Amino acid sequence: MRVLGIDPGLTRCGLGVVEGMVGRPLTLIDVNVVRTSAQLPVAQRLVTIEKGIDAWLDEHQPDAVAVERVFARSDVSTVMGTAQASGIALVCAARRGLPVALHTPSEVKAAVSGNGRADKAQVGAMVARILRLDAPPKPADAADALALAITHIWRGGAQARIDAALAAAGRRTS
Amino acid sequence: MRVLGIDPGLTRCGLGVVEGMVGRPLTLIDVNVVRTSAQLPVAQRLVTIEKGIDAWLDEHQPDAVAVERVFARSDVSTVMGTAQASGIALVCAARRGLPVALHTPSEVKAAVSGNGRADKAQVGAMVARILRLDAPPKPADAADALALAITHIWRGGAQARIDAALAAAGRRTS
Repeated sequence: MRVLGIDPGLTRCGLGVVEGMVGRPLTLIDVNVVRTSAQLPVAQRLVTIEKGIDAWLDEHQPDAVAVERVFARSDVSTVMGTAQASGIALVCAARRGLPVALHTPSEVKAAVSGNGRADKAQVGAMVARILRLDAPPKPADAADALALAITHIWRGGAQARIDAALAAAGRRTS
Repeated sequence: MRVLGIDPGLTRCGLGVVEGMVGRPLTLIDVNVVRTSAQLPVAQRLVTIEKGIDAWLDEHQPDAVAVERVFARSDVSTVMGTAQASGIALVCAARRGLPVALHTPSEVKAAVSGNGRADKAQVGAMVARILRLDAPPKPADAADALALAITHIWRGGAQARIDAALAAAGRRTS
């Protein structure tokens, strides 16, 4: 399974593609950050982000897209731009009919590090370890996008096992 | 000048097209609300909104688009969806190269009613009067979209006059 993780942001939008499945080593396919200038109008910045995501969907043909869930309680000065960028990410995936999942920052931190309150450095270090990289991906937005993709593969796998177990239990009791 | 006003929202996204210029009676061209079900995933709801806006841009060929500016201090339960929908509205306009402007709710209320704290009923009544309608457009999202378009035409006109006056003053003093 190939997953595109997107860490939405207006100034830096992280994109990371990871391939693999639960219980097997995961592989980094590509990672990048779409940057837009704060000097430009928001509408134009969002178009740049849309083009960047569309280009990556074309190039990497992921099976699913994982986007960070944005909360209103986040930093107020940037949260509106982050929410707008996340809307673009969701639309880019959904209009191609790709499955889209939202994962919270805590879920991602817990998935890659075992600690829902891990800091940026810990997440970067774990992403590097999981993907067998020489160093944590930079900037943090790139590492976060990869962490989202890893989380999606691992949670998807766990969810599939839970569903299978429930289905098997259902068959036994019925 | 023909302006598409967009009152962004995930459940109801208001669209209103107004034609005219400052100092002349304005004309209602069309008004509508794109609705999406809260039962559906956000990504799918945003795609429906994108299709609705794109269809209106195709049909009405506006010269400019006016979108309500969303603030983080708004109702927290809906503000993320509103911000995401506004991002879609901005991208739909900007990728066609249309001029996009953001107007705050206070600016819109002040423009149509003379009172930046006017309530929904006042805004609806003034929109009906300005566009010579028999009754306020329903729901409020429809009236708000038209109020945005009216504001854009009137502010644009005022700005153009200010720019012209400054340019003339510049010529006289230089």
